[in-house]
Amino acid sequence: MTIDHQTRLSKLQEHLRQQNIDIGMITTPANVFYYTGFHSDPHERFMALIIDNQNGETTLFVPALDKEIAEDASAVKNIVTVSDEEDPYAKLKQKITGKVSLFALEMKTVSMFQHQQLQSFFPESEYEDLQPFINSQRLKKTRSELAYTQKAVDIIEQVLAEGIKKVKIGMTELELTAELEYLMKKFGANGPSFSTIVLSGEKAALPHGTPGDRAFKEGDFLLIDMGVVISEGYCSDITRTFIIGEASDKQREIYDIVRQSTLAGIDAVKAGVPLKTFDIAARNVIKESGYGQFFNNRVGHGLGIEVHEEPSVHENNEQIAESGLLFTIEPGIYIPGYGGVRIEDNVYINEKGKAEVVTAFPRELQIL
Amino acid sequence: MTIDHQTRLSKLQEHLRQQNIDIGMITTPANVFYYTGFHSDPHERFMALIIDNQNGETTLFVPALDKEIAEDASAVKNIVTVSDEEDPYAKLKQKITGKVSLFALEMKTVSMFQHQQLQSFFPESEYEDLQPFINSQRLKKTRSELAYTQKAVDIIEQVLAEGIKKVKIGMTELELTAELEYLMKKFGANGPSFSTIVLSGEKAALPHGTPGDRAFKEGDFLLIDMGVVISEGYCSDITRTFIIGEASDKQREIYDIVRQSTLAGIDAVKAGVPLKTFDIAARNVIKESGYGQFFNNRVGHGLGIEVHEEPSVHENNEQIAESGLLFTIEPGIYIPGYGGVRIEDNVYINEKGKAEVVTAFPRELQIL
Repeated sequence: MTIDHQTRLSKLQEHLRQQNIDIGMITTPANVFYYTGFHSDPHERFMALIIDNQNGETTLFVPALDKEIAEDASAVKNIVTVSDEEDPYAKLKQKITGKVSLFALEMKTVSMFQHQQLQSFFPESEYEDLQPFINSQRLKKTRSELAYTQKAVDIIEQVLAEGIKKVKIGMTELELTAELEYLMKKFGANGPSFSTIVLSGEKAALPHGTPGDRAFKEGDFLLIDMGVVISEGYCSDITRTFIIGEASDKQREIYDIVRQSTLAGIDAVKAGVPLKTFDIAARNVIKESGYGQFFNNRVGHGLGIEVHEEPSVHENNEQIAESGLLFTIEPGIYIPGYGGVRIEDNVYINEKGKAEVVTAFPRELQIL
Repeated sequence: MTIDHQTRLSKLQEHLRQQNIDIGMITTPANVFYYTGFHSDPHERFMALIIDNQNGETTLFVPALDKEIAEDASAVKNIVTVSDEEDPYAKLKQKITGKVSLFALEMKTVSMFQHQQLQSFFPESEYEDLQPFINSQRLKKTRSELAYTQKAVDIIEQVLAEGIKKVKIGMTELELTAELEYLMKKFGANGPSFSTIVLSGEKAALPHGTPGDRAFKEGDFLLIDMGVVISEGYCSDITRTFIIGEASDKQREIYDIVRQSTLAGIDAVKAGVPLKTFDIAARNVIKESGYGQFFNNRVGHGLGIEVHEEPSVHENNEQIAESGLLFTIEPGIYIPGYGGVRIEDNVYINEKGKAEVVTAFPRELQIL
């Protein structure tokens, strides 16, 4: 399991040459990490990977504070530091000596302010979006990337298996969240890949709810949606829903529909068909059971370096699925004021175009 | 302790009127929270608070998924939901019926992509930065805001006091991090306000390092920099450095210089002088002790809803300090390959223009 940053960079450089782009600038932390192996959130400070297509040089600009860590972690060894007193755009201008006619950058993350700064130093340049190419490159995961995701999945499943042993009547959502996040680090994760979701009772109907002081009661739904990021930088994301104490017939009915929906979504996964196929397959199970109005979001999203990345698996996405895609399948039924069920797995489309399910935690209803 | 969102909004509306701004658009989660009480990270989805100065209406656009939570939490009750299939900018255009000549938005966070979308629907509009006004409003904290910060500080100090009892030889940085983050939730926090920093031995020389598998040894520096965010949305941020087992003379010397530096920084805090004064007071102690080259960052930053916000307390900031400012004082000495010490406190400038130190954890050297 190794990541070949040079190959990633070479593909990007090839793209710049083909498109006659003079400068490629990458500032999103996840993308900088993808091409260099250096992961840092610079907050308001300036960090950028600059690929100069005119002289072939690749340079990583980092805040002065991050110099040592960047030198250690980055595959790009040409590092320029920017201290808090310096103007990063002036420093960029110094480094880029050629005439810039076409500047490619991440238009969804480069701010209007940054754009203005660049325009003042490169007034003749046109700007173009580099994100679509980066997305297309990051979209297709190698076996090494899958192996890292598998490691992140193995950890979160271990956390889930241990964590649910702690559940008891009267425990609050936040207390269970603390236990789960403790276990994440204990089992070797860097931390949660997103804010851990533990929702009980009627709160399980909130697809985006946050854990609070609500205490677990007999007959509660218990929805746990969580993931970890590991030191190699890859994420997992899994949801299981449990019932505490005793399950009603209606709870069992809803649970079973969602389970069938998740299975139908996974069964539909293969290369060569539009991504919407997977959403529709899962959605139809819920619709046909009469609960269609209670499933209002897309069935899944890609994951990898980020816990939400390309592709978006929704019912209108005509993009054709291909080998190397790695994404979630997570249908749910959410009934306001009553509760909800979501069952989420991670699926990879392998070299043969077939689905490999990365998650292995049982989907059968467990009463805690 | 209550937050009056209506007063905050009214001040913003007054600003729009004075500046002849037709539409104010706020999309940064922390700013949306500041004006509405609704806190959500919509990730790639569209969320915006729209203040229409032409008809006096204020509208909160949220992803469809967040409808229930937004209705519950937001002080702005006029809510428009956007589903994944809808174009948020088209929906915005529907809602804004008047002619827009001047559109104010957060230029440091609105992306080039969003700017293009807005330009296509409001082609006649000029764009102006709203962030400076929002910053000036958020900069001055009320007593209620201070009380929430105090609550976040009290929790993190309780975590620190309990957490250091767990330290022993052979424990790793990540293990201690897990213990500390467990205690944060146990003591009532929502979670860390930033990625918890636990660095030992020579790693304590990395101002931005991340905890790893390094195990604690006799004679190690142990630098802990952490904070929590509480359910009311306010943050704390404190650093203390300890020594494990036995301290060398050099370690004691460095520790004492940093302690004197922190005290000098705090002593300098008052209204009516430039912010740089506080940085220079702390920095001079380190410079005069001959360690000036090992302190390369600013002495502090504001905190509140975010753990890094205005003001920036650095040696060139001529901005005049005033009542209501709340910020960190955190000088340090970082010697590459050897180790480092940072001591960080939180300070408020009160109604009389005098410093109130919010943190209370002892600054004397503790040997663990």
